[in-house]
Parts: sequence; structure tokens; C-alpha cells
Amino acid sequence: MDGLDLVLRGGTVVTSSDTTRCDVGVRDGRIVVLGSDLPAGARVIDASGLLVLPGGIDSHVHIAQPSGPEVVQADDFQSGTLSAAFGGNTTILPFALQQRGQALRDAVRDYHALADGQCYVDYGFHLIVSDPTDQLLGQDLPALVQDGYTSFKVFMTYEDLRLDDLQILRVMAVAREQGALVMVHAENFDAIRYLTETLEAAGKTAPFFHGPSRPIAVEREATHRAISLAELVDVPIMIVHVSGRDSMEQIRWAQSRGMQIYGETCPQYLVLTEADMGRIHGEGAEMEGAKFVCSPPPRDEASQQACWEGLQTGVFQLFSSDHCPFRFRDTAGKLNLKGRSSFRWVPNGIPGVETRLPILFSEGVAKGRISLNRFVALTATNHARMYGLYPRKGTIAVGSDADLVLWDPERRVTISQSLMHHGADYTPYEGLEVTGWPVTTIVRGQVVIEDGVLRGAPGQGKFLVRGLSEHARPHAPAAF
Amino acid sequence: MDGLDLVLRGGTVVTSSDTTRCDVGVRDGRIVVLGSDLPAGARVIDASGLLVLPGGIDSHVHIAQPSGPEVVQADDFQSGTLSAAFGGNTTILPFALQQRGQALRDAVRDYHALADGQCYVDYGFHLIVSDPTDQLLGQDLPALVQDGYTSFKVFMTYEDLRLDDLQILRVMAVAREQGALVMVHAENFDAIRYLTETLEAAGKTAPFFHGPSRPIAVEREATHRAISLAELVDVPIMIVHVSGRDSMEQIRWAQSRGMQIYGETCPQYLVLTEADMGRIHGEGAEMEGAKFVCSPPPRDEASQQACWEGLQTGVFQLFSSDHCPFRFRDTAGKLNLKGRSSFRWVPNGIPGVETRLPILFSEGVAKGRISLNRFVALTATNHARMYGLYPRKGTIAVGSDADLVLWDPERRVTISQSLMHHGADYTPYEGLEVTGWPVTTIVRGQVVIEDGVLRGAPGQGKFLVRGLSEHARPHAPAAF
Amino acid sequence: MDGLDLVLRGGTVVTSSDTTRCDVGVRDGRIVVLGSDLPAGARVIDASGLLVLPGGIDSHVHIAQPSGPEVVQADDFQSGTLSAAFGGNTTILPFALQQRGQALRDAVRDYHALADGQCYVDYGFHLIVSDPTDQLLGQDLPALVQDGYTSFKVFMTYEDLRLDDLQILRVMAVAREQGALVMVHAENFDAIRYLTETLEAAGKTAPFFHGPSRPIAVEREATHRAISLAELVDVPIMIVHVSGRDSMEQIRWAQSRGMQIYGETCPQYLVLTEADMGRIHGEGAEMEGAKFVCSPPPRDEASQQACWEGLQTGVFQLFSSDHCPFRFRDTAGKLNLKGRSSFRWVPNGIPGVETRLPILFSEGVAKGRISLNRFVALTATNHARMYGLYPRKGTIAVGSDADLVLWDPERRVTISQSLMHHGADYTPYEGLEVTGWPVTTIVRGQVVIEDGVLRGAPGQGKFLVRGLSEHARPHAPAAF
Amino acid sequence: MDGLDLVLRGGTVVTSSDTTRCDVGVRDGRIVVLGSDLPAGARVIDASGLLVLPGGIDSHVHIAQPSGPEVVQADDFQSGTLSAAFGGNTTILPFALQQRGQALRDAVRDYHALADGQCYVDYGFHLIVSDPTDQLLGQDLPALVQDGYTSFKVFMTYEDLRLDDLQILRVMAVAREQGALVMVHAENFDAIRYLTETLEAAGKTAPFFHGPSRPIAVEREATHRAISLAELVDVPIMIVHVSGRDSMEQIRWAQSRGMQIYGETCPQYLVLTEADMGRIHGEGAEMEGAKFVCSPPPRDEASQQACWEGLQTGVFQLFSSDHCPFRFRDTAGKLNLKGRSSFRWVPNGIPGVETRLPILFSEGVAKGRISLNRFVALTATNHARMYGLYPRKGTIAVGSDADLVLWDPERRVTISQSLMHHGADYTPYEGLEVTGWPVTTIVRGQVVIEDGVLRGAPGQGKFLVRGLSEHARPHAPAAF
Repeated sequence: MDGLDLVLRGGTVVTSSDTTRCDVGVRDGRIVVLGSDLPAGARVIDASGLLVLPGGIDSHVHIAQPSGPEVVQADDFQSGTLSAAFGGNTTILPFALQQRGQALRDAVRDYHALADGQCYVDYGFHLIVSDPTDQLLGQDLPALVQDGYTSFKVFMTYEDLRLDDLQILRVMAVAREQGALVMVHAENFDAIRYLTETLEAAGKTAPFFHGPSRPIAVEREATHRAISLAELVDVPIMIVHVSGRDSMEQIRWAQSRGMQIYGETCPQYLVLTEADMGRIHGEGAEMEGAKFVCSPPPRDEASQQACWEGLQTGVFQLFSSDHCPFRFRDTAGKLNLKGRSSFRWVPNGIPGVETRLPILFSEGVAKGRISLNRFVALTATNHARMYGLYPRKGTIAVGSDADLVLWDPERRVTISQSLMHHGADYTPYEGLEVTGWPVTTIVRGQVVIEDGVLRGAPGQGKFLVRGLSEHARPHAPAAF
Repeated sequence: MDGLDLVLRGGTVVTSSDTTRCDVGVRDGRIVVLGSDLPAGARVIDASGLLVLPGGIDSHVHIAQPSGPEVVQADDFQSGTLSAAFGGNTTILPFALQQRGQALRDAVRDYHALADGQCYVDYGFHLIVSDPTDQLLGQDLPALVQDGYTSFKVFMTYEDLRLDDLQILRVMAVAREQGALVMVHAENFDAIRYLTETLEAAGKTAPFFHGPSRPIAVEREATHRAISLAELVDVPIMIVHVSGRDSMEQIRWAQSRGMQIYGETCPQYLVLTEADMGRIHGEGAEMEGAKFVCSPPPRDEASQQACWEGLQTGVFQLFSSDHCPFRFRDTAGKLNLKGRSSFRWVPNGIPGVETRLPILFSEGVAKGRISLNRFVALTATNHARMYGLYPRKGTIAVGSDADLVLWDPERRVTISQSLMHHGADYTPYEGLEVTGWPVTTIVRGQVVIEDGVLRGAPGQGKFLVRGLSEHARPHAPAAF
Repeated sequence: MDGLDLVLRGGTVVTSSDTTRCDVGVRDGRIVVLGSDLPAGARVIDASGLLVLPGGIDSHVHIAQPSGPEVVQADDFQSGTLSAAFGGNTTILPFALQQRGQALRDAVRDYHALADGQCYVDYGFHLIVSDPTDQLLGQDLPALVQDGYTSFKVFMTYEDLRLDDLQILRVMAVAREQGALVMVHAENFDAIRYLTETLEAAGKTAPFFHGPSRPIAVEREATHRAISLAELVDVPIMIVHVSGRDSMEQIRWAQSRGMQIYGETCPQYLVLTEADMGRIHGEGAEMEGAKFVCSPPPRDEASQQACWEGLQTGVFQLFSSDHCPFRFRDTAGKLNLKGRSSFRWVPNGIPGVETRLPILFSEGVAKGRISLNRFVALTATNHARMYGLYPRKGTIAVGSDADLVLWDPERRVTISQSLMHHGADYTPYEGLEVTGWPVTTIVRGQVVIEDGVLRGAPGQGKFLVRGLSEHARPHAPAAF
Repeated sequence: MDGLDLVLRGGTVVTSSDTTRCDVGVRDGRIVVLGSDLPAGARVIDASGLLVLPGGIDSHVHIAQPSGPEVVQADDFQSGTLSAAFGGNTTILPFALQQRGQALRDAVRDYHALADGQCYVDYGFHLIVSDPTDQLLGQDLPALVQDGYTSFKVFMTYEDLRLDDLQILRVMAVAREQGALVMVHAENFDAIRYLTETLEAAGKTAPFFHGPSRPIAVEREATHRAISLAELVDVPIMIVHVSGRDSMEQIRWAQSRGMQIYGETCPQYLVLTEADMGRIHGEGAEMEGAKFVCSPPPRDEASQQACWEGLQTGVFQLFSSDHCPFRFRDTAGKLNLKGRSSFRWVPNGIPGVETRLPILFSEGVAKGRISLNRFVALTATNHARMYGLYPRKGTIAVGSDADLVLWDPERRVTISQSLMHHGADYTPYEGLEVTGWPVTTIVRGQVVIEDGVLRGAPGQGKFLVRGLSEHARPHAPAAF
């Protein structure tokens, strides 16, 4: 008990199971003791009146990804992880995206180059497979799983990314054999294309029509299809960013049949609606709705209610941001005109890594919809378990990394771009009042943010070699 | 009442609603009077002790279609319609199949050339669209609907036939505007391909593995997808040859949401199982299972029970044969070796137009599973309503065509190839004992089969210009 | 064909299956011929421009029943059957209600005494069992089934009528052995009592609170319970007057499991809502809502929509009026003050036998929700099949009773008390505009109403000895 | 960190969330520190190679309850709690049963008298309400909630215990206002009575027919009804001892509609079947099946599988024993002849408090069906949360009671009566081989069982004044 590097004193420690009044003792970046009235360490932080939470893990963020010609995401690894840290996160899992024709290993190397020495919080990479060649399936992917890249994402839509069903089956077969987890972006590409062409032909090109171009049936269909493909290969999958009841019913149905189908939802499906994409005001008014364009699109209030039910009843295991920031105006202040001719060209994605935790805490915990423990599970523990980081990350337990957030449950904040640290020039949650805010963020015992002030430096965050998901184990190829 | 050409006397007349003891009077090929004790006509047939049914309409038969290089279907229009007539049918609806690169009009003309003057029963054509060019979608298809080809079929599988989702949406959009009905063969092509490759790689190539290469999840997925595409376009569709509960649940779900999703099942899903594809006996034994290969494959007994429930509770509106005959041995008696290297090459399809009615009558009516009236609905009336032939066809009513079958409900027959009139050299129902058999078949007042003896001649059957389905009406393009 | 008593010429004959332009020939009260251009009979009625329908069968009407002390129903058998005839009905099935302590035979005799010689249309009796003594179960009920009273009704609510579950099981067991059909009024008595007491304690006593005193969960629960009891005894039942989706889902669930559970809905669930019970206007305004009080109560518009779906998809086999008329003012014009102290005392029931067909035709057929054939099935054919009257009643076929209605599909009528012939002093459908109206009603070949004018006389309607339901057959007691 | 009374060293500490290698330090009966390499306390127990679990909480046990005339339960509080302790439990929640006519306060006092000074583990009481007088509802029950009896149980069956629906609603209304939790034994009394009479009349009286006398429809119906009553009052309830899929589907349906309906299952539904009640062997052979008679009865293997799914997917929150022991032979060795004339007289209940944890661990954790953390949740944490004992009980956290079990995950044991400490003379699990066994049981820091040897004394276990359930909060009466 002696020789502690850091002691958090007097806080209320929260895990996905328990809420305990006790001190936390840290040595060498790890939690070594939990107890009442611990002796002082080299450093003592007074956590009285605060919650001590496992640092948030945001397992769905996009950083520095190309998004078509000329479109650059608004965050690099430095700004992205800074924003994450200010939002109460200690780990993020962005994507290493393979471009068609590119070797997957090269893609991974490129992202490492971008991230190396830049990060304020720990990070790993999911692999986006866009070109599943025999080389990739037979050699590269298995080798990368062994190297700690234990999850892949496949897209069922987007021209440059989408895989057809045969490709998805083949990627799933590799996942099965390696024990990796497959994440699925489930929307029907052809249906979106058909609807987009139909809408454009009718002159319906404003950002608002992003919503009608991908109604929930488009998402539900792809969800059912992804589940069916996973059923054939007998492999667990994660359906990411689920937006409403129709898709949830598919997931719930699969779960109740004993299939390992997991689900994730995001803040935009709890507090935004399709109406936001129809907003018109201010300068550049006709494009204002573009600030809310993401895929799947936010739906309606009944869908918000459905997503809450999914968080409450276990349809969803994960609550992520799907942080995917673009600038509304360029750095010179010029309006991004990309999407002016049609919603089709509005970059799909909104920033959110910094606001994920406050939104769920305020709308969920403070309003009595979910317990504090479920909040921790949905924002940290389940991510660690799902993506091979547990018990190193995602909980507050003896032996775990000292990734901790001090959370002020009473602080009232009005979300505003002026408070944000991301590279985007707006937040879609501007004006939203929340109760509860992260004040101090500690990564492996090092204080990165202290009472709202940056104390850390780029490079403090390290790459994480991940183990296998708790929900996926290597299996022989499925027999029929 | 005078001057009747034909009077059926003393039978029990059955429609989808009523069962009535009365005589039927025919003039000029039409029913003109139903009554007790009608005066004699030019000809009188004694129907006492027999049921007088509307002639069967088999709306799902394949005649003289190419099925890949070197594979010829076993029936031409003469043998196919003769077999139909002996099976108690007075109308069949085969397909005019567009080959890729072929103009749809040319395909239609070709099938007319094959059928013209050859048929014993009336016939129309569904159009199979395999190459939906702009010309086809914008010009040919609308024009053909106007000409009485009011239903199209799309395939979600088969290399040479399958459409992708975008193509299906476009075909559906034409159907919506024209009021045509779209039939869907719902199986996931990529999944079948993946499973086939996997099975072949494991050396599992016997006919039996046709079943494992397309499990019901493959069918369920495509069914859900087809429903979703129809939902987006807001157009009615018919899911053909549904094989079991998983797919039925999708259809039922859609129906209960008020969507116009219709379903069909077939004899093979009531009395065959996947085990039949594993049969090994006789000469050419290892290929015996090929006699039962069709798609979707027969499943298990629980699926048979599910299909009965679907017939009883209205999930299915149609009971068709999906007659698609191939020879097991060629006409010289040589074993067809096509499928020896892999089940993949076994032609998909079995004969059944002659046995459809006896099987449903015996297993359904005689065993108390369905009423006589539902039997008529499932085998005749609903087909006429679904495909634009009602009230001309499909019922026994004043003004309708005198398409009539005299049915002996007590006759016991053991189904055997020796009784068949099709071009195939076997029946998959060999040895099945049935109760109830069609004895006399009358097409527009002309006796084609009389007490089991052929009295008609090729060419008696005429082409039917069909109206629109009762379930489909022209609509403006869907607005979003 | 000679010697016809009556020929209906030039109409469009509609059955539950077919719609045919033909003449109908009648002799000795029965239909003997259907044909084009029939020779004239003793009497010829020109039906050109009109539909010729099977006379409506209303299998759920209450006539001359006591409804607690001092409350008399507003119709005797003369006014009730007159109203029925003007509404296009040729058969009604009211109830013979056993009062507790009364022998069932005596109850039956009493109702016969009331009906004998008074009726304009044919009639039979369902038996209401309120006191299932051993004598009743062992002797009287089996004997009455043999005498043609082949259906019984049990109540799960109402102080003086309700049976407990054990009593219901015993009645069902008799039904099983005799092949009788059990009708169930499904609402939870205790729950209504609890809610009523709670509402009254809160001073919520206006007629409007009849609705909140029996929310649909009360009906759904009893529906599930009735289904479960029927499952245990393995006996078909009819759930009468279903008001909305929750209850329908129970019925659909049972049907999809292969149970013989049937359902009925009524006009009040298609065109009224709970808001009607809150109406306040006119003299006696605070009681105006009492005009709409029935049980289960009308719900909301989503429930109306659900009921339409049930009619469309086959959850419901029957559409009945549940005609149960009370006077709002007495014959001296004095306001009925019965329900003033609490909704609890408002008599439960509304008139409707005369408006059932026009409402379903107008809202259903004319507005495109259901076909003409389904209209006939729901209002006539299915009732005959369900309650042992088919094929004598319920269809237009050779050999059936000539119970016919000439229906003007174009006539527009605004429903109004001034048009009604019932004993009530109001209609809950006052002001509803409908398209389609019955103009002539013929019972067994005798014209009772001709072009809106009464031609018949009391006593023309005869008692019907009914056979067994098509859906119920005698069985040995269930074995376990 | 100094002055620890007890240190558990080197074990693997498991909570419902986490699995951590660390030491546990105890002072004054509470856990005060969790850490690696804690300094020694007054006493040190070596836990290396063992799991350190929160002591089991069995929230469904019957101790010393009367069960009809002449039938005495086989356990008093001393034997019952001893058996519990040997089974790895540190808290049990038996029932204080009100007999009709008895004041509830008196019942509570009686049970206290029986338990006082007798218990080896801590205990609280649920209240069984059998006679909900106005006095009870208005005065006694609210007062007892205030005193820490925060859960009540109602029975829907059993002659002497069952409440009718109105009584249940009134008890639920009190629960709502007080924030108490209602437990429901859901079986339909009348249906059981009907089936029992029917079976007896057919001479089917052997113990085996206990199963057919209460098929799952009987349980499903009551479950649906209980849910509906809870819906009307808007109050959370716990459906205890759920035996199979039909009932689970009702609970899942309610949960997915957002209702607070909770569920419990028990070991007998995982490892016994109805066939066990048909066992005939040994002396007294024809009664052997009586050893397995409990209600609801064990079902079949598909039901076992369903219950596992319910434990996996969250339909069930609790796994309890429903310990309810009776002697097969009396203490003099004479066969209990109570049930010989009919299964109706076989006492309903089997022992199980000692085998609950090993069975779930072996069949669940060791066989890979559930995780270790879910095991802890289902057997301890969720019970504490559900019944107002958390965080004092049910977890291993700083500040919680030091209720701990050392569990040997590798020990293989064949369950046998010779190993049991209950008052019954048999175990229904005789011969079942399990992997994993509790070796040491510690209650509030005091070692009661040490490596299988009793070290504690009666009276060590204390009465627990419980707080409100986490899932129930006081509310104003429901408004309508």
C-alpha cells in the first residue's frame, strides 16, 4: 500500500456493476488498491463530490479518413484525441481504412504513421476491408488479427467501400476462424441509389432529402441480411449505429433465437431527428441541414424512444459516437459547397466524440432512463469486452489500467462549439443543455485533463494491441 | 335455357365459396345456367357422384425453357399441356424468358412460336426479365402489359437470370405504374455461391448437398429483401415457392403491417423432404437424389407442417406446381451425367403439373386439413384473381368460361410414372397413394379428357390476353 | 325452369367468392336456377343496376333481454326484426338468456314465447349460460344442442352473467362433446370493478369514464385467458366484439399456432371512438355520451385501423352489430337518469342492426378497403357457416333459401334516427353519410321490404333449427 | 490498511461485472480494501486457486411454512440456513405467510419467533398476503414496508392462498404507493382444478399426472394475466419460478413494451423434466415420482433450453431455488402416504437451497452457457438489487458486508443426499455430477463453513431490514 503514485480520494467509484464510496490507489499506471481511507500517494486528487468512472471508450470514431476526392475529415489524431480526452474518453478505436487496390498492411501502416506520437488517449484500430482479395483473406487479415487488430468493419453501402454479400461472407469466414469480430454498416446500397436518383429526378436535392433517400426500411433490410449472412457462417457480428425500431426488431429477433448479434446506437439517434436536416436559418441557410447529415439519418421521436428502450433492455450493448467530423465552412470561413447540388454530395458524418458521454449521462442517467452502472457499461466496459481490451480497460478494478474520469454529476453545461476541441467548426448539439460533465481525465495514471485544463501532451496516448473479443473465439470453418 | 351445347348433370358444383348440388349448362363455351334439373343440351354428361370443379389453373409452370447449355426441359408445349389437362388443369401460365442481350419482345415472340397450335389447355405468359435495359423498362415492358402480359418474374439467384436490387427496384417501379404484378424467386445468390464453394471444397458434391447449399436462411433473407424493396416502391409482389416457416414469417409479418405481399407454396414442400435428395438405390443410384432437386429445396417435416398452416391461415394465396421437368435419363436411356461432378450442375426442377391437384386434394381435403372450397381457391380461383383472368377463369359462375373438371373424390390412385403424360421420365411422387382424381377435363365447353381418355387435340388451348391482377392497380410513381 | 315463383332479373349476383351478372330464379322459397336470361316467373323483379346479395345474417343481436332491474331493452322481436329487415338482414341470431336460478329450458321457452309470430326475418337463438349447474351441463345443454341451439355464449364480466374460469371450462367441455360453438365476451370483471371503484373514488363518473374503466388491457387479458381455456379443452371459440389491436394480436397468435380461435368485430369499432362518450351538447347534454356506451368501448383511430386490418387479413371472420338498444329518453320523452350518478349505471349497448350493412359497405367496399365478396362473407356467408345455417342460408346458390337483398351501391344516405325502425330513440351514427343502401329484402322468396316500403308482416320470419357449426364437431372429452 | 480482521489472499474476485486477481481485506464485518498484496490481518485465508464470490442470495425459499393440515415442511430455520450456508449462500429470503383470518403482523411475529437465534446466515422476510382485508391494505402492509418488509408475494393458485384478481389489484395498488415489489406465483387455479378433476375421474392419479394437471398453458395464462394487472396499476412485478417458453414469451413481450416485468427461474427447470415425476423404482416405487413434484412442474428438454436462453438474454433476472422441502419418508422411515390416493395430495415442493449454486455453476459456467459474471448477477447481485439489499449485500466492494464464498471451480462432486444438510430425506438431484463447489462460506466476516466444515453457530445470521427494491419506487396512485 505504500509507494502509491496517485490516490483519488473521497470519490464515488462506479463500475458497470457497483457504486462504491472509496479511494483509488494507482501505481505504475495501474490500479493497485481500492479502499476506504487509503494512505496518501505521491499525488492525491480530491474526488469528493465527484464520480470516479472508468474512462470512456469510444469504439466508433473516424479520424483522418479520406472521404472521397477533395473531402478531408476535420480531425487529425491530435485534435481527435484531444477532443476525446475533453469528452471524458481514455481510449478510442478509429478505423484503418483499406482503399481499393491498396494492401491492407499498407493501410494499417499509413494510419499508424498518422497517429504515432500524436495522441492524447490510447487507441487501437479496427480494419475496414474494402477489397477482400485472396491475399487479404488468406494472409493479411489473419496475420493482422494475430497482431492485435481483432475487429474488422464491412460496409454494405458507399460506392468505394461496399462489399457484396459474397465478399462479406468471405470476410466473416476469416473472422470465424480467427476469432475476430465483424462490424457491419447496414444499409442497402442499391435502394439508396434508387431512391436518390428518384428524389433528384424530382428536384428534391436539399440536405433534408438525405433522410428520405435512406428510410429505415433500407437499414432494416441490410440488418436482416447481415444477420442472415452471419447466421450462415455462424459468427458474431456488431450492427453499428442502429437508428430505430425496425432494425432493432431484427436484432432482437436474432438475439432471442440465440444468435450472437450485437447492436450499437449513438447520440444522434437519441436527440436529433430528420427534421434537423431540414433546418434553414442563418447565413448559408439553405445548407444548414447539412450539419446533421449522417448515415443512417436521425429519424423521429418514436425512433428516439425505441433507441432508449434498446439501451434499457439490452438490445444494444454499445453506445458510441460515430464521430466523423467535417467542416461546414473551410478554415478560411468559406461555405463548403460540396453538397449544394444534391444531398448526395454532402459528406456523411458529424462530430460527437466530445459530447457522447455528457449527452448519455444527462438524457439517460440524470433523467432516470438508465442507471449509472448501465451508463458505465454502455460507454466503457462493454466496449472493452467487445473489442478485446478487457480487463485492462473499461473498468475500475485492481490490476486494470488507471484510466479514470472524474465526473461532476451536478454541473450544468450548455453544449456549444466554443467548448469543443474537435477540428469541426460546429457541433450538431449546439444549445443542448446537459447536466453532468467530465472534469478530469486520467490515462494510465497520468492526468491529461485536470479540472478542464489540458495537462497532457501528444504522444501520451499509446497504441493498443488488442486481444480477441469476449464474444468471438476462433472456430473451425462452419460445417454444413 | 334451350339450345344448351352441354349439360353436366347431377354433380356437386364447388366454388371457392360454395358447394352445391346442381346441373351446369354450357353454351358457346361459357356457363350460362346453373340449376336443378336443367333440360338436356346437345350433349349431356352424367356427373353424379362426382365433383364439378373449376378447371385447375397452374400459374407457375416452366415449359420449353432453356436451362443452361445442353440442358433442355423435358416438356414442350404439347406434352406440357397434355400433362396439365390430365392433371385437371384447364389453364397454365408458363414463362416467356428473356435471355440477356435479347429483346423482350423477341423472347415473347419465340415462346408464342413454340406454343402456337400445340396446346391442349389455355395459356398465358408471365415475362421473365433478365436484362432490364432502359429500352425494356421504358418501352417494351409497359407495352407488353398493355398487350396482356400483366405479370413479370424476377430472380434473385441463378447466374444468368438474377437481377441486382437496383434492377429489381426499377422493374418494380414499372410494375407500379402499369399495375402489373411482380413475382419473385427469393434466394440469395451470393450465399448460395459461397455455400456451394464451401461444400465442394469439402468434397460434398452429391445431390443431397443441394439442400445444405441453400438452407432456409438463404430463402428467408431474400424474402425479407424482396419485401423491403416492394415496400420502398409500394407495390404488391408474389413470393413464389415458399418452402417453410422462416420465409413464411417474413410474409406474415409484412401482411400484418398491411403490405400487399402474397405467397405461393407447392406440392414438393408438402410431401417431399431434403432426405429425398439423399436417396441412393437402383441403377444410377448415386444420382437418384437428383430426381428431387429443385429450388428452394424441400426441407423437413416441421416445414411441411408450416406450409400446411400457411395454406390454412391465408399466408399463401396460391398453390402451384412449379413444374420444371428434366429427364433423369435421356431418351436413349442413358443416365444424365450432368450433375455427377457436383450437385451444382444438377438441373433445378421437377415435374408436377399433373400431380398438383391430386396431391393437394388427397393430403389436404381428404385428410381434413383444408376444405373443398379452399382447395378450389388455392388451385384455381385465386390464380385467376391474382393474374388477371377472373371472372373469365377460375370459378363456376354464369358467364364464366366452361373450364370444368369432373373429380372423383373416392378414386384411389398410386402415383406412378406409368400414369404420367409429361416429358420427364420419372415422377418424384412415385408410389404416393392419393384419394381423389380428375377424370374429365373440359376447356371452354370442349371435352379434352373424358373419363381418363384423351378426346382433345393440340391447338384447342388458346392464348389468354390477361387483364390486370385484382391486387395490382396502376399508380403514379411513389412519392417520398 | 318453368313455374318459377320469382325471378330477379338483370342484377349483379354477389357471393363470398363471385360477382356474376345473371338472373335468379326462385321456387318454393328456394333458389332453383341462376342463369342469363331466365324465363319470367310468377313475379319478376327488375334488379338492373342493383347488387343481389345474400340477405345479411346478424349473428350478434340482443332482443328483449332484461338488463338489470328497471332497464328494458328498447326492441321487442317485432321492432327488432323490422329494423333488421330494413337494414338488409334476412336472419338474426339473438340470445336466449338464462337468469341465475332459472332452468335453461325455461329461458328458451320464454324467448320463444316473445318471438313467436312476431318476426319479420328468420331467427335462431344462441344460449347464454349464466348458471351452469350439473343439471344444465349434464342434461339440458346437450339436449338443446340436439334441438338446434348449437351455440352458447359465456360472459367473463357483468355481475349477473359472468362465469368463473372453472364454469367456463365446464361449458366448453360440453361444447366439445356436442360439437357446439362457444362465444365469449372477453373482459376481466375484477379489473373493471377495480378501475370503476378507483374512478368513482376520484369523482370521475361521467359517461366518458366508461372508456377508462375498461381499457384494452382488460379486454386483451380476458381474450388471452379465453384462448387458454379453449386450448386446454381443445375446443373452438368465437371471441365476440373485438375492439382493437391488443386483443387481435392474441387471436392472431392463437390462429398462427393452429388453434381454432375465431373473431368478430362490429361497426362501433370502425367509426366511433372513446371521444364520442365524452360528447356534451344539446338538452341533457352531460349525458349525451351515454348514447355511445357499449362494451368493450370504442377506442381510438389506431384501433379502428387495426380492426380494418383484421377484417382484411382474416383475423376476423364475422362482422356483427352487437345490436343492444336502450332508450336515451323514455317514451314520454323523459331523460333516462339511470347513469347520472356514475357511468357504471349507464346501460351497456347501442342499436345497430339496421346500420351494420350500410356502414361496412360504405366504409369498406366503397372506400376500397375490402372487396364486395369479402363484404358478403363478413356479413352473411361466414355467419351461416359459423353457426350451422350453411348452405341453407348465407349464399346465393341453387338449393339455398331465397334470402336476398337488392342493394343500391350508388345510393347516398345520411344516417338519421328518422330513417330507423328500431325501438331506440336515437342512432349513434346520426349524421354519418354512407354510400350504398339496401332497397329490397326478400326472405325465403317473400318480399318483406320492397324499395324501402314494408310489404311483409310479423310472423313471416321463422325459427331456425340450426345444425352444428362448420368449425365445431363433436369430440370425445379431451385426454391429457 | 492496518488492523484488518481478515484477509483473503490470492483469490480471483468475481462480481457481476469484473473478474480480478486481488486480495480482500475485511474489518468489522465489512470489506474495507481490495488490493494486490494486502498486508496480513488478524486472520488470513489462502484463496489461491479459488474464486472469491459474493455470498449467494437465495430470494425464494420456504422455511417452516405450514402446507395444509398434517403436512410440515422438512426444514426449520436452523436446518434450512445450515443447508443454505453449505450451499454457498450468505442470505436467504424466506416467506412470512399470513393464514386467512390471521393478522399479517401476527404472522410476521410468528416467523420471527421461529427464526430468532436459529440462523446461520442472514435473512429477511417476504410477506405472503392471503387475506387482504381493508385493515391489511390500509394499515398493516404500508407499515410493514416501512419496517423493511419491502416485498409481498401473491398466489394465483392454491386453495388457501390464492387471491382473486380484484384482491391482487388492491395489493398491487399498495405496492405502488409504498414502492414495494410484488412477487407472483402465476398458475390458473380454476384450470388446475378442472384438469385435476378430469384426470382423477379418468383414474389418472399417480404422481406423474401432477404435470398434465398444470400444463404450461395454465402458467402462461396466469403470467399474461399478472402482467395485465400490473399494467393497469402500473407497478413492477416479479414472476417467480418460470418453467418454459410460453410463459417467457409473455414476459419478454411485456419487457419489450417497456413494462417493468421481471422473471425468475430455478434449477428444477434446467435439469429435471416431467418424466422424473413418472419414475418408478425402489421401495415405495409407485410414489418415487413424488420426489420431483413442484409447481409449476418441470417440463421437457425444449423448455430447459428455453430457460437457458432466458438466463442468457435477460428475460430472467433471478435464479433461485424455490427450496420447499418435504420428507418422502417420515423420521421413523415410514413412507409418506399423503399423495397415494391422488397426485393432488402430494405436497408441492422440493429441496434445493444447497444445490442451487453448484447446479448453475456446473451446467452454466463450466459448460460455457453463461459467464462467471452473469452467474454472480443471477445468484447474488440481482437478488440484492431486486429486494432492497444492495449494496450492503450481493457484491464485493469496499463498504459492502463481507459475505463471501470461496469457490473451487475444479472440484467434481456427485450430488447425493449424504452430502446434504437440509431436513429433507432426499435430494431430487441425486446422482447429478457437477463441477465446482463452495468450500468456505463467510457471513459478515465470520467464517461459517470452512473448507466444508461447520465453524459457525445458530444465531450468527441476523434479520435484515430491507430498503426498497431498485426497481420499485413509491408513486401516487395510478391516474386514468
